[in-house]
Amino acid sequence: MSVVVRTIERVGRADLDALAAHGVATLHEAMGRCGLMATRLRPIYAGASIAGAAVTVSVAPGDNTMIHVAVEQCRDGDMLVVAPTSPCEDGYFGELLATSLKARGVRGLIIDAGVRDVRALTELGFPAWSRAVSAQGTVKETIGSVNVPLVCAGQHVTPGDAIVADDDGVLVVPRGDIAAARKAAAAREEKEAAVRKRLAAGELGLDIYGMRDKLAVKGLKWVDKS
Amino acid sequence: MSVVVRTIERVGRADLDALAAHGVATLHEAMGRCGLMATRLRPIYAGASIAGAAVTVSVAPGDNTMIHVAVEQCRDGDMLVVAPTSPCEDGYFGELLATSLKARGVRGLIIDAGVRDVRALTELGFPAWSRAVSAQGTVKETIGSVNVPLVCAGQHVTPGDAIVADDDGVLVVPRGDIAAARKAAAAREEKEAAVRKRLAAGELGLDIYGMRDKLAVKGLKWVDKS
Amino acid sequence: MSVVVRTIERVGRADLDALAAHGVATLHEAMGRCGLMATRLRPIYAGASIAGAAVTVSVAPGDNTMIHVAVEQCRDGDMLVVAPTSPCEDGYFGELLATSLKARGVRGLIIDAGVRDVRALTELGFPAWSRAVSAQGTVKETIGSVNVPLVCAGQHVTPGDAIVADDDGVLVVPRGDIAAARKAAAAREEKEAAVRKRLAAGELGLDIYGMRDKLAVKGLKWVDKS
Amino acid sequence: MSVVVRTIERVGRADLDALAAHGVATLHEAMGRCGLMATRLRPIYAGASIAGAAVTVSVAPGDNTMIHVAVEQCRDGDMLVVAPTSPCEDGYFGELLATSLKARGVRGLIIDAGVRDVRALTELGFPAWSRAVSAQGTVKETIGSVNVPLVCAGQHVTPGDAIVADDDGVLVVPRGDIAAARKAAAAREEKEAAVRKRLAAGELGLDIYGMRDKLAVKGLKWVDKS
Amino acid sequence: MSVVVRTIERVGRADLDALAAHGVATLHEAMGRCGLMATRLRPIYAGASIAGAAVTVSVAPGDNTMIHVAVEQCRDGDMLVVAPTSPCEDGYFGELLATSLKARGVRGLIIDAGVRDVRALTELGFPAWSRAVSAQGTVKETIGSVNVPLVCAGQHVTPGDAIVADDDGVLVVPRGDIAAARKAAAAREEKEAAVRKRLAAGELGLDIYGMRDKLAVKGLKWVDKS
Amino acid sequence: MSVVVRTIERVGRADLDALAAHGVATLHEAMGRCGLMATRLRPIYAGASIAGAAVTVSVAPGDNTMIHVAVEQCRDGDMLVVAPTSPCEDGYFGELLATSLKARGVRGLIIDAGVRDVRALTELGFPAWSRAVSAQGTVKETIGSVNVPLVCAGQHVTPGDAIVADDDGVLVVPRGDIAAARKAAAAREEKEAAVRKRLAAGELGLDIYGMRDKLAVKGLKWVDKS
Repeated sequence: MSVVVRTIERVGRADLDALAAHGVATLHEAMGRCGLMATRLRPIYAGASIAGAAVTVSVAPGDNTMIHVAVEQCRDGDMLVVAPTSPCEDGYFGELLATSLKARGVRGLIIDAGVRDVRALTELGFPAWSRAVSAQGTVKETIGSVNVPLVCAGQHVTPGDAIVADDDGVLVVPRGDIAAARKAAAAREEKEAAVRKRLAAGELGLDIYGMRDKLAVKGLKWVDKS
Repeated sequence: MSVVVRTIERVGRADLDALAAHGVATLHEAMGRCGLMATRLRPIYAGASIAGAAVTVSVAPGDNTMIHVAVEQCRDGDMLVVAPTSPCEDGYFGELLATSLKARGVRGLIIDAGVRDVRALTELGFPAWSRAVSAQGTVKETIGSVNVPLVCAGQHVTPGDAIVADDDGVLVVPRGDIAAARKAAAAREEKEAAVRKRLAAGELGLDIYGMRDKLAVKGLKWVDKS
Repeated sequence: MSVVVRTIERVGRADLDALAAHGVATLHEAMGRCGLMATRLRPIYAGASIAGAAVTVSVAPGDNTMIHVAVEQCRDGDMLVVAPTSPCEDGYFGELLATSLKARGVRGLIIDAGVRDVRALTELGFPAWSRAVSAQGTVKETIGSVNVPLVCAGQHVTPGDAIVADDDGVLVVPRGDIAAARKAAAAREEKEAAVRKRLAAGELGLDIYGMRDKLAVKGLKWVDKS
Repeated sequence: MSVVVRTIERVGRADLDALAAHGVATLHEAMGRCGLMATRLRPIYAGASIAGAAVTVSVAPGDNTMIHVAVEQCRDGDMLVVAPTSPCEDGYFGELLATSLKARGVRGLIIDAGVRDVRALTELGFPAWSRAVSAQGTVKETIGSVNVPLVCAGQHVTPGDAIVADDDGVLVVPRGDIAAARKAAAAREEKEAAVRKRLAAGELGLDIYGMRDKLAVKGLKWVDKS
Repeated sequence: MSVVVRTIERVGRADLDALAAHGVATLHEAMGRCGLMATRLRPIYAGASIAGAAVTVSVAPGDNTMIHVAVEQCRDGDMLVVAPTSPCEDGYFGELLATSLKARGVRGLIIDAGVRDVRALTELGFPAWSRAVSAQGTVKETIGSVNVPLVCAGQHVTPGDAIVADDDGVLVVPRGDIAAARKAAAAREEKEAAVRKRLAAGELGLDIYGMRDKLAVKGLKWVDKS
Repeated sequence: MSVVVRTIERVGRADLDALAAHGVATLHEAMGRCGLMATRLRPIYAGASIAGAAVTVSVAPGDNTMIHVAVEQCRDGDMLVVAPTSPCEDGYFGELLATSLKARGVRGLIIDAGVRDVRALTELGFPAWSRAVSAQGTVKETIGSVNVPLVCAGQHVTPGDAIVADDDGVLVVPRGDIAAARKAAAAREEKEAAVRKRLAAGELGLDIYGMRDKLAVKGLKWVDKS
């Protein structure tokens, strides 16, 4: 049942650039709060903010065979998404694989396992979001699959989906939802810009969002002393 | 039982500045090692070192209604202290709330849950200590309380207590203990400065602290080979 | 059974410098993937890359007596390796101890517990790898041992072993394995440099490592559509 | 985007009974080791071994509204599968809901959150697999969805899929894979029965599985002394 | 600052018996969902359901001195509540201490650390709720306090408060809230008995609780196909 | 570097029986509180209390090849001790391996990973202590070692050492320490029997252990009111 799917439909480049500009928090909110990977995935360095089309890799614990296989399926604008078939924090990925992916235009790595060579990756400017940093290397014995739907850090990913990642975490935007997500995010940003200005001027969210009446209905009391 | 207490007695500004200057580790030691919040609270960026008067917020899991309510109760020199009623790592707090609190002079956020927009918070210079970074947004449905005593990350906090936070963690200094804490911390710093100088010159703590006799009594043996 | 062993055989300085230059990931791989401490040990600041001879310290939970005892046994080029006898994340170690160790030429600290004063340690340039940052201080009541074999973060350490630490983690290189480790690491680096160049030029690991035939034998299929 | 899907295609009763008889470990192995939920899900009492058709429920953190909605969609032979939209261990489910589900013939509960009233559930004979036991109740404010595809404890579940659960954990068997899974499991059981007899008689797996030659090729050495 | 308070006001015996009969889940719900200790506290054996007046003990990590001191302050109907000053899972408590407490009529132990001799405790019928089972013994070097307010597993406990514990967890009922808690719990049980009967007869919570209109207002849609 | 050592010196049967009778908590205390494996290892069923000679197995993550190899090295009275080379909770071990080991007289399994078929193991009466229960099977691709010294759950184990396991956890007693451990444990049991009788009669540990004077010296105060 191990398979490498060579032909996937990818989210387009213009969409990726727009999604990266919106960022994870805005998009996630705009999409109705779904698609966020588990918070155990953290960036290996701060400040990267990217989006790419998912090339998915299902790997055995402690075995990075399929990452090598996946490289060949990657192209400019992709994001590698790696999930082990059972929990593992070994360092599946380091400088050599990053060099190879960078040569193909891959934007970054999402892995629900470990990475190593973090200093070299930082110097290369190849961002990664991982559940661990670990020098523990892996073997090349057991096959898996590339470009099959899988679950990574609690989220279902279909190959070609947009993956957005920044300091706030990692978000999956299904290909079919991208137009709606972009539109909602743009609307949200516009609205937030106006709200931000009012808040900076000292207005209260309680008033801007009209919360006072609802709070009273729910029974909230203001008292002078406890 | 949901209530917002409008009038609390706050630790004074001079005390806050002095406490921030001592820092968490020194104060905690000076106070007899009590009041430290759990180490799961980490700063979203390194280097902040602040103190503020606690405005406490009890929130439902996945619901930030009461943070909006609390903003109105905050003023210059305060620190917002947020604890969910059951464990939650959602991103209750982001750039808009930080903008609002900054406009009121609030010094920072302590939250036993998640925050988002960490890059924006970092650029704003609004420090936060949290158990997670998460883009997962929250709803506004369930009320809670503001300025009631609560437990945050394992420590009991009374509204108006001093909260001190830096790279070493987060400390609660009860209002009634501040004078003693300042005095003990100052004494400790003076003593430590002298010890530091001797240690830097090569003297041993074993001698400076007079530990050798006690160690012998306890039965410690020095041998040349194992 | 508490003992301080004064005479240990240490890995030499030239070996330490060479090991530090190879780094944890390369050495670990070159040694056949053994000796890596658990990933819960993280550096308090990024970028340090060091090696030292292990001076081991077995401490009681919440008690740093034996770290003070160990200082006297340390000398230039050493690395302090501290393990509590049961899990503990208290801040056993801070600025004063770092000052004392630095005065003796100690290169850094490995501790399967907490450290504090992380800003001061960073400013001092005294690197530490720990399982927690905690201001929680310790007492000086219970004795333990210095320079006995122990388990730290899942690895067995014999006093005098080389400890290598960088952003990827912490590695134990037993004294008897150092020559072999250096040789294998140097060979690995040479080989990796060649591979890196080919990968950067767009060649695939699949071809460079000759993986295609083995993958076919194992039953991997390439398909055009899922 | 909150929806309750009333019509789903369910795995049949004969299949469910057969799957329950095979058990999680055998089926999982027979299916090529996929579909197992995370080990954080544990049974509230030992010995239950069941299978049911998945009725899925997506709930907000700390809010069990949708479990009440889902009850109406359940019928004889179903298994309720509940996943919160962000991590939560509140006690969403207790004796009253179990009474209601039992009245409809539901076989059990899988929840990546908490349950309560465990003594009553045990006495009722209503089995549950959960990540926590918690008396912490929930609110009824926020809607979600019933019978939509979701991820529960790391596995993707489509409504109507077979869920098999016993002391070894919880397994998802997609509806389309059931015939193959049953066939492979039956074959595996037959083979295992023969192997078990030989092992009980003292034969070695090394010989039964013909492992010795492969081990030699891989370089394993047998020595008399270390 | 180490102190043993000899005179505390305890919740009365009739109240304790009534609270134990209600159980943790019902009381917690009746009290508005507050006072529940963290779910990391689990019973060492299933089926115990008790209530006692809190005798609190603040202990150093790895040091059970103060449990011995606390025994003398215990009397019939009490519950020992032990919290370490920093996280620790050592086995502070075993058969001898249980024998001593049982001789004084103490009903059980709540400890945010470890216990040992679990088989003997089970045979003695002395129930304990703990965060770990650990044979790791403790020293007797560092003093702490008895019968001071403290935080145990995330909840604030005042000496003399009622502690209720069963298979669902551990609940603190402040002395001043007991009358209200009993009354609310009794009302809740009566109401639940009626609801349980209707649910067992096949009625739906959706109807009993009148949820359908609110769900429609919130926007929930029922559809026939996804 | 993968090796199977065929000849190891084992602790004798009379010693094993005596150690099992003492139990983990008593022995651990008698040995000066060392050798206890991490509390993450829990028995798959309550009540087993055994001791065996360690046959050690170092396995790759997700690969149980070497357990099959180890079976051949086991004999009556042994205990299998399995540690993965990086953290893994897969189900390495189930009914077939237990059948095979039972046929050779092996007393039980200690594994810092997962087991499956727990119901069958319970019915077989083959006890296991593991960090997880998981149906997740393993592959047979990567070799490791049998009967080499290793670290399992934080403790160093030399092949042939006594392993004692019961409801309180798992203890390593090095072969060279057994005579001393038995003697100290017997002395401790005699002393504890006397103490237990006095405690059951209502005497206090404070008096039996003569703690009052030391407590006063350390500064403990008894007060009547807080």
